[in-house]
Amino acid sequence: MKLFSDYESEVRSYIRSFPVVFDRADGSIIWDDQGNEYLDFFAGAGTLNYGHNPKAMNQALISYLNHQGILHSLDKATVAKQKFIEKFYQTIIKPRGLDYKIQFTGPTGTNAVEAAIKLARRVTQRGNVIAFTQGYHGLTMGALAITANDYYHQQIYASRTNVYHAPYDGYFGETINTANYIRQLIEDSSSGVSMPAAIILETIQGEGGVNTASKEWLQEIEKLCREKNIFLIIDDIQVGNGRSGEFFSFEFAGIKPDIVCMSKSIGGGLPLAFTLIKPELDQWLPGEHTGTFRGNNLAFVAAAELLTYWDNDELSQAVLQKGHMIKRCLEQFVSDFPQLKMSVRGRGMIWGLEIPVAGFAKQLSRTLFENKLLVETCGKEDSVVKILPPLIIKQAQLEEGLSKIGKGLQMLASRENVAA
Amino acid sequence: MKLFSDYESEVRSYIRSFPVVFDRADGSIIWDDQGNEYLDFFAGAGTLNYGHNPKAMNQALISYLNHQGILHSLDKATVAKQKFIEKFYQTIIKPRGLDYKIQFTGPTGTNAVEAAIKLARRVTQRGNVIAFTQGYHGLTMGALAITANDYYHQQIYASRTNVYHAPYDGYFGETINTANYIRQLIEDSSSGVSMPAAIILETIQGEGGVNTASKEWLQEIEKLCREKNIFLIIDDIQVGNGRSGEFFSFEFAGIKPDIVCMSKSIGGGLPLAFTLIKPELDQWLPGEHTGTFRGNNLAFVAAAELLTYWDNDELSQAVLQKGHMIKRCLEQFVSDFPQLKMSVRGRGMIWGLEIPVAGFAKQLSRTLFENKLLVETCGKEDSVVKILPPLIIKQAQLEEGLSKIGKGLQMLASRENVAA
Amino acid sequence: MKLFSDYESEVRSYIRSFPVVFDRADGSIIWDDQGNEYLDFFAGAGTLNYGHNPKAMNQALISYLNHQGILHSLDKATVAKQKFIEKFYQTIIKPRGLDYKIQFTGPTGTNAVEAAIKLARRVTQRGNVIAFTQGYHGLTMGALAITANDYYHQQIYASRTNVYHAPYDGYFGETINTANYIRQLIEDSSSGVSMPAAIILETIQGEGGVNTASKEWLQEIEKLCREKNIFLIIDDIQVGNGRSGEFFSFEFAGIKPDIVCMSKSIGGGLPLAFTLIKPELDQWLPGEHTGTFRGNNLAFVAAAELLTYWDNDELSQAVLQKGHMIKRCLEQFVSDFPQLKMSVRGRGMIWGLEIPVAGFAKQLSRTLFENKLLVETCGKEDSVVKILPPLIIKQAQLEEGLSKIGKGLQMLASRENVAA
Amino acid sequence: MKLFSDYESEVRSYIRSFPVVFDRADGSIIWDDQGNEYLDFFAGAGTLNYGHNPKAMNQALISYLNHQGILHSLDKATVAKQKFIEKFYQTIIKPRGLDYKIQFTGPTGTNAVEAAIKLARRVTQRGNVIAFTQGYHGLTMGALAITANDYYHQQIYASRTNVYHAPYDGYFGETINTANYIRQLIEDSSSGVSMPAAIILETIQGEGGVNTASKEWLQEIEKLCREKNIFLIIDDIQVGNGRSGEFFSFEFAGIKPDIVCMSKSIGGGLPLAFTLIKPELDQWLPGEHTGTFRGNNLAFVAAAELLTYWDNDELSQAVLQKGHMIKRCLEQFVSDFPQLKMSVRGRGMIWGLEIPVAGFAKQLSRTLFENKLLVETCGKEDSVVKILPPLIIKQAQLEEGLSKIGKGLQMLASRENVAA
Repeated sequence: MKLFSDYESEVRSYIRSFPVVFDRADGSIIWDDQGNEYLDFFAGAGTLNYGHNPKAMNQALISYLNHQGILHSLDKATVAKQKFIEKFYQTIIKPRGLDYKIQFTGPTGTNAVEAAIKLARRVTQRGNVIAFTQGYHGLTMGALAITANDYYHQQIYASRTNVYHAPYDGYFGETINTANYIRQLIEDSSSGVSMPAAIILETIQGEGGVNTASKEWLQEIEKLCREKNIFLIIDDIQVGNGRSGEFFSFEFAGIKPDIVCMSKSIGGGLPLAFTLIKPELDQWLPGEHTGTFRGNNLAFVAAAELLTYWDNDELSQAVLQKGHMIKRCLEQFVSDFPQLKMSVRGRGMIWGLEIPVAGFAKQLSRTLFENKLLVETCGKEDSVVKILPPLIIKQAQLEEGLSKIGKGLQMLASRENVAA
Repeated sequence: MKLFSDYESEVRSYIRSFPVVFDRADGSIIWDDQGNEYLDFFAGAGTLNYGHNPKAMNQALISYLNHQGILHSLDKATVAKQKFIEKFYQTIIKPRGLDYKIQFTGPTGTNAVEAAIKLARRVTQRGNVIAFTQGYHGLTMGALAITANDYYHQQIYASRTNVYHAPYDGYFGETINTANYIRQLIEDSSSGVSMPAAIILETIQGEGGVNTASKEWLQEIEKLCREKNIFLIIDDIQVGNGRSGEFFSFEFAGIKPDIVCMSKSIGGGLPLAFTLIKPELDQWLPGEHTGTFRGNNLAFVAAAELLTYWDNDELSQAVLQKGHMIKRCLEQFVSDFPQLKMSVRGRGMIWGLEIPVAGFAKQLSRTLFENKLLVETCGKEDSVVKILPPLIIKQAQLEEGLSKIGKGLQMLASRENVAA
Repeated sequence: MKLFSDYESEVRSYIRSFPVVFDRADGSIIWDDQGNEYLDFFAGAGTLNYGHNPKAMNQALISYLNHQGILHSLDKATVAKQKFIEKFYQTIIKPRGLDYKIQFTGPTGTNAVEAAIKLARRVTQRGNVIAFTQGYHGLTMGALAITANDYYHQQIYASRTNVYHAPYDGYFGETINTANYIRQLIEDSSSGVSMPAAIILETIQGEGGVNTASKEWLQEIEKLCREKNIFLIIDDIQVGNGRSGEFFSFEFAGIKPDIVCMSKSIGGGLPLAFTLIKPELDQWLPGEHTGTFRGNNLAFVAAAELLTYWDNDELSQAVLQKGHMIKRCLEQFVSDFPQLKMSVRGRGMIWGLEIPVAGFAKQLSRTLFENKLLVETCGKEDSVVKILPPLIIKQAQLEEGLSKIGKGLQMLASRENVAA
Repeated sequence: MKLFSDYESEVRSYIRSFPVVFDRADGSIIWDDQGNEYLDFFAGAGTLNYGHNPKAMNQALISYLNHQGILHSLDKATVAKQKFIEKFYQTIIKPRGLDYKIQFTGPTGTNAVEAAIKLARRVTQRGNVIAFTQGYHGLTMGALAITANDYYHQQIYASRTNVYHAPYDGYFGETINTANYIRQLIEDSSSGVSMPAAIILETIQGEGGVNTASKEWLQEIEKLCREKNIFLIIDDIQVGNGRSGEFFSFEFAGIKPDIVCMSKSIGGGLPLAFTLIKPELDQWLPGEHTGTFRGNNLAFVAAAELLTYWDNDELSQAVLQKGHMIKRCLEQFVSDFPQLKMSVRGRGMIWGLEIPVAGFAKQLSRTLFENKLLVETCGKEDSVVKILPPLIIKQAQLEEGLSKIGKGLQMLASRENVAA
């Protein structure tokens, strides 16, 4: 580990929470270089929905490398890209009655967000973007502007420009419909909130603490966007690709975003990102938004292979079933440890266990790591334990992990002597 | 090709210049899906210095995949990352007497640039950044701000903030030392140019038209940065990794930047990017700049393997020798076609042939593509033919490509009837 | 009038509503160049609280001119300025137990606002400022940023920077306490709303439609500012100087702003503006904010004279009594014309009569002008008739004006055939 | 004086250089409250071209006050405003073959600048403005952006937005034509300098150190503006109104700005400001830029009266003759005190004596104040003594003042023992 502290920047982060050197991985299991085995309830922060090293994917990659398939192609046409596009449209886009155009951006989520916002501004000729409390969209300057958490901002960056952070669904409590407020602010030409180019949101705020938007709220936001010709941009980077139980996390609400930002799990762990754009809004000039790695062909190969998971609804069903199980289990914890005043929220296979005792969630994550379970925290003051296993996790592994969480809660709750 | 025009965004670009579907590649050769063979003088815009599918690299990737090596690791420690860091410090950093810390960013050049600029602002608590005429640094909002070309900007983006574009070396002609001007502007507290956090530059402006900075100019800029505690950031994304004949393009000038931005060829075509930071300036807090794909292990594996090219100075020697040959050949063209009023500039194995006849360079690129040579244009109004072959190109291939260029010039010069 | 349309910019505004050439004025009466007499319920948008050409003021000005008193002095000391400061501190500041320092700015309200915001940013080293829906603070770029109304903004100005517009008291209806929301947004470091340098507000929003903030709301905002070291800036430009019944409009709430912006009526119609700053926050360096006309000595002379109105509480009492009368009268109109669905709001001698019938208020203003009463509209879509007579208006004049409004309502309500 | 330090903000400035309480003034003479007499070579930083309390002006003001002329009128039509406009068009605009529209802004120079820049952006729909090294245009946020001097800026203001500071005429030495550079930057779409909405400049930089632009340079800048549809804005606030020897300071160059900003001396010391706009560019909507004091009628009365100075060319002739005398005298000082390495620059009756010995100019100003001569310094590190007497100064007074400067130089040069 000394190598890393000697040579790697102080910015390093997860290595501090999980201070071992990882080597191999398979499905929901990771091994470190000493052969220790860890169960992964973290899934690369939502990048490994299909688990580590899916066999068919790895096989496809090896074949491609043996074939001397072109690896790097900028935005030239390649056979690998062609196959991905074909598979994606046949498996995902067309069956859902959608007709998006696809824009490959630099292969990081933040780049897809930057492209989406630029296009919304370009087409509407409006500068303002409405984003939400506790939203996370990336850390390059255009995405950082709309990322809520102060931790990533510095006054000197002057980074919060051309953005208005509005309250997310439920932010002011259950009785307040924040969609109404947003409508009032937008309809009032003297509100000080300019007519926005776009409203950008996550249907489930992963980094923000697993906050979920309701179907009704999403529909009201969409309606507002339609009336005012505002781009509705769904950032589905963390909770798309089946995490919610459907391929896109917004399907349950019956809405059709103007732009969808995709990344993370789409490439099975290899860098890939793109936006989906309604054809009539695809008003880019050639090359106006580019990037060296927007043709990462290994990721195209991986993605095309992994999309076979969506040839039928088995994965969806499994996610809903396993998600239900997680929910029940977490709710049990809530009632088992009333003194912790915990609460549970989530959808599909992303769940948050909020533990309002200061520092408790963070300590739990450390304890679980000692017990060979990888779990991260999120939300305000890292008070939410985020349950994010690979979607393909086996039933027994899921049970094992949840059981470890229960034991961890037990141990810490007693040790810390939290008053009832 | 219809698939691409049907489904891919209008933003697509190179596919319009090279409208075939590429399939396989080896060294300096690419084949399309019809089996046609193309010679690559373009090298993924500087990403394929080591050629396509270097055998040892591909073999290492396959082994890693067979080993079920962890693919995606955020910024956790992995064996693959460890090996890359070790190799990089032993082969590159230490032999050059450097002591940088390394920050892995999202695996795109633009992300490395964003991180570099943020850090400079964070440490100096100054907002302004000096960038240069015709500089290119990427298209996410922080990098876009300092990218010169209007084509990428829209008024509504309000994208040119906290930046001052100063004249690059030679911009106002050979007799004017622009470093002096920059010094005057900076030393005068009433110039309207705020003391900058950083001066960021490419030692050779690849996209900007293969403009080269002299040793003396770079030294004067470094001296100014030292005196005023300004970060000197070298964006070595396109012309680092040996393109200039040395690993870093700034070595010839004897300067030591405060931050170096690396990407493109470092990963052999796989997405990888990082910054090198002087240890005393590495003042990040944990996790202040993150990104999902900053642990792209396949790229670490590829990069560690490719760095063996730097175990000795053979590659450097070859680059200088082949670069010299390119230069002589281009100069011959200049004298062979005086009516085109061409000029030549470059260094190492990046060369520009400026053809001031409107549209000529672009037409030449098209003609060469028909003749199975991939060459791109750059610079003001795309008037510069950019010669950027893989560094490992064989002598015979290089000669063949240059010969094709000569024939192309011949054909177009006669056809277009350009007046002497 | 042709002279004005020939030579004056299209930006001219009130001249279109009141298309005559005015000549003389006395108290609440103005005469045009044809000798027509108008009753002024408009008072220079709040600049003529003491009426037109107060006799003592005019006499003091004439004496000063005869004395060859220095007229223009930048920020040098003058006898006239000395007298003003003495009078202001003895009559206003000290009796209220305050200890502000005074900063004379360029003699326009917008300049005072700019100075206040700069100082708040300078001292706190925070960029963000919270302003309010429907707030108006001026049109130079720093003040424009916080002025809510879209009409004054253009996308190309990029004018809404470093500001967050929060809902004013009552904006989301009577049952919602918006001060709570603001607290939540500020206390949550992931809300996307940065800790602000300042909260700036009008206690009564004059241009925004005569919206009034309650005592409790103001106290909660002040409490929040105290806890978080946020500057509380009261823009008392339109509703200070006795308009509310007290000299400062915020006295009724018992709060002590960190900065108060004063202008308009303080100079009796002559340009004068300043800020009052808590001594410990007065961290300017000499000359950091300057302006050619910050020593407008005629205005000092006028202001010192007019402050004698505050030697006792007669004016205050009169304002409250006349304000009460206005209120009762407007409420009578509301019940007399139920079909107009009007509502009344205000405080002291600033009252708004909201008439939600499209265009009605504007038409009423035109009709009243024909009947020789000057009244302007304000608020959303100019739907609010703003009653803003000089504070020193005579009882009979006030009755006459209100009676004209009643007749105007009568005439238009019948003519327009508004459905009950 | 204690009153001022007790109650007035630390921002106070000139009061520190001239620490007495001024009372009366007449022509070029000011008296303090002790009856001491000072000769004014400072003229309110260019506001008192016609001297203090011009008799005819004061008489007109007194008559107006006795008439109960309306004092404050927003932008309603008044007899006083009418007379000013008539006089201004007959005396100034029409004889010069101009056809500007006039926009009255808030009565401060900075407000006129803000209006000019907004209009340029609004009409061109471009955001960038080119301003110049050492230029001064005011301190409200829009004007501050283009004001060069760092002293007025703070990082937290983020104040340098949408501006590019280009080198003023002569900034890089006499052999460099900076107009050519600006052309190159603007014509090159890859320079990083966006096509600007406007180029704004002072023909003589008063605050910046009395730097003068040549006729040829101004013509080249105008030519560039014409070709590219860039607004040429002349900020004539300090050096207009006859200071240069002509009414507008740009007349000598034969150029016709798109917008002219006027303020300072136009109102004879009373606050007044406006812009002159080419009619075809006057694309404001009604009320888009407003301000409470844009109808300061006393200033209209004063201005109309003072314009009689331009009924013939006597004042112009006198300015040129007295300016010539100042120049000769200053040049004599340069040769009398070679050890001070002084230099002289200026035009009309604004002259700078640069004294590169650190602190010398500032000390000279203090010494002269003790000798009852008011002179201020300007330019880089306040190294330039600025000679700016009222234009109407008597020959004898001018000689007396210059003689005092000579004696001051003599005394300080010997006392400070400056090496030859």
